Amino acid sequence: MSDPEPFRHRLRVRYSECDPQGHVFNARYLEYFDIGMTELWRETIGPYEAAMNGSGVDMVVAEVTIRYFASLLFDQEFDLELTVTHMGTTSMVTSIAIADLEGNRCCEGEIRHVFITHGTSSKTPIPDEVRAALAPFATV
Amino acid sequence: MSDPEPFRHRLRVRYSECDPQGHVFNARYLEYFDIGMTELWRETIGPYEAAMNGSGVDMVVAEVTIRYFASLLFDQEFDLELTVTHMGTTSMVTSIAIADLEGNRCCEGEIRHVFITHGTSSKTPIPDEVRAALAPFATV
Amino acid sequence: MSDPEPFRHRLRVRYSECDPQGHVFNARYLEYFDIGMTELWRETIGPYEAAMNGSGVDMVVAEVTIRYFASLLFDQEFDLELTVTHMGTTSMVTSIAIADLEGNRCCEGEIRHVFITHGTSSKTPIPDEVRAALAPFATV
Amino acid sequence: MSDPEPFRHRLRVRYSECDPQGHVFNARYLEYFDIGMTELWRETIGPYEAAMNGSGVDMVVAEVTIRYFASLLFDQEFDLELTVTHMGTTSMVTSIAIADLEGNRCCEGEIRHVFITHGTSSKTPIPDEVRAALAPFATV
Repeated sequence: MSDPEPFRHRLRVRYSECDPQGHVFNARYLEYFDIGMTELWRETIGPYEAAMNGSGVDMVVAEVTIRYFASLLFDQEFDLELTVTHMGTTSMVTSIAIADLEGNRCCEGEIRHVFITHGTSSKTPIPDEVRAALAPFATV
Repeated sequence: MSDPEPFRHRLRVRYSECDPQGHVFNARYLEYFDIGMTELWRETIGPYEAAMNGSGVDMVVAEVTIRYFASLLFDQEFDLELTVTHMGTTSMVTSIAIADLEGNRCCEGEIRHVFITHGTSSKTPIPDEVRAALAPFATV
Repeated sequence: MSDPEPFRHRLRVRYSECDPQGHVFNARYLEYFDIGMTELWRETIGPYEAAMNGSGVDMVVAEVTIRYFASLLFDQEFDLELTVTHMGTTSMVTSIAIADLEGNRCCEGEIRHVFITHGTSSKTPIPDEVRAALAPFATV
Repeated sequence: MSDPEPFRHRLRVRYSECDPQGHVFNARYLEYFDIGMTELWRETIGPYEAAMNGSGVDMVVAEVTIRYFASLLFDQEFDLELTVTHMGTTSMVTSIAIADLEGNRCCEGEIRHVFITHGTSSKTPIPDEVRAALAPFATV
C-alpha cells in the first residue's frame, strides 16, 4: 500500500520575510511550518483554537529539524507539504517539505509536537478524534 | 526652562531585521519603539508586567506615526530617544527618535497609548505613580 | 462623481503575528500594509520587482501613520482596503484600512512612498505608466 | 583535556517575540541562534560583513535542529552558549544552547553552515584565518 498524498497548502513569500541576501530568512521557514500545521488542522479537525479548547488539550513544539536545499525569493509561490509520520501516546511527528511550483524541494524537516493539558505543561494522550482526523495524511 | 534630556537606550541592528534592500525593514522600527517603551518603564517604574499588573492597568497602542529619514544597516548601533510629550487623563503620547552614533536622526515618530483596566478594553486614568515616575522624561 | 472602490486583498492572521495579549502585535499591521502595496501593484502594474526594475525606479517608505480601533485575533480573516489618495511629482500617499469580514474597521492609516532611482537615494518622478495603472484605485 | 568554555552572549526577550501562549514563539529561537553566530564572529574575527567580504566568502545555513525544554517569558534574560563542534573542509557545525540566568537549559540545537564563494552558491573551503580564529570556542 502506498503512502498517502501529503496535505498541501500554497503560500507566497512576503517582502518582510526576506533578508539582505534577497531570499527568505532561515527562521521564517519555521513560521511557514507553523502555518502548515494550522491549515492541516483546519482541513482535518477544524480551526485550531476551537478544536483544541473543546477537548482541553494543547500542543507544544518539542523538537524541529530543517534541511535547506534551495532559496525562496520575494513574491515566489510555494507549497507546504505535510505528512504525519509518527503518532505515539502523547507526541506526534510531522514531516514538512517546501516545494516550488515546479516541484523542486527547497527544504524539508520534521517537527515533533507534544500534547499537553491546556494551561499546564503536563503531557496528555493524543485525543482519539485528533488521531482519527489526521489519518488521511498520516503514514502511521 | 529647557526640555529634559530624553531617555536613551542603545540597540544594534539584527540581521533578521533587514530586508532585501539591505537595511532595516520599515515595520521593524515599531518593534524598536516598543522596546524603547519597555526600557523607559524599567528605568522609571520597574519591569513592565510587574509594575502594571500591580496597579491593575495595561496600555494599548492607539496611534503611531513614523517619519523615515535615513536607513539603518545590519550590525549598526543606534540610540532610541524617548520623551513623554503629553499626558492626558487616560492617554499618553511619547515622542521617539532613532539616532545613529554620530547623532544623525534616522527616523522619528509619536506613539499614543491609552491606559485600560487590565483584561478589559475600558479606559482608565493614568495611575498617579506612573505619572510621577515618568516626570523626569516628560515635557508636560 | 463618487470615489472609486478601494483595492481589496484578503488575509488571515497567523499565530506568529499575535502577541501575549492574544491579538496581532502593533508592528505587524505595517507588514500587512506592505503586503497590500505588493498586491495593489500586482493587480495594476504587475509583480513589483519586474515592473519596477524594468523602469529603473524603486519606492521607499517616507512616512506612515496608523490608528488602531479594534484587535484582530489569531486565525481571523480580514480585508486590506487600499486607495491612492495623493500622487505628487515624486511621492504618493496610499490610505489603507483593515476591516473584519463584517466590515468593521479595525485600523486605518496612511503610507507615503517616495520614488527613487533604483540603487540610489535620489528622488525621481513617478513613472507615467505607474500613474496611469494606479488610476482605477486613486481618488486623484 | 577538557572542552573549552562556550562563547556566551546575553539577551533579553522582547515583547514582540512572544506568542499568545505568553512565551517566546518557536521560530524566534532561530533568530537568537543567528544573533549568537554574529556575536561569536565579532568576538573572534570581527564584524561579520567586513570580515567575510574581505575574504570573499559567505556562509549559508544548511541544516538546523532545535530541542525545546522550557519556555522563555517576556522580559526574561538568557544566555546564548555557542561551541563549534565540527569544522570540515567547507562546512561547520555549531552547538548552541539557551540557558536562563540560573543555568537551566531552555533549549539546545545544532546549526550547520556551509561556506560559499560570495555571490554564488559554490562551496568553498573554510578560510584558514576563520578556522584559527574560532579555535578558542571549538572542540575540534
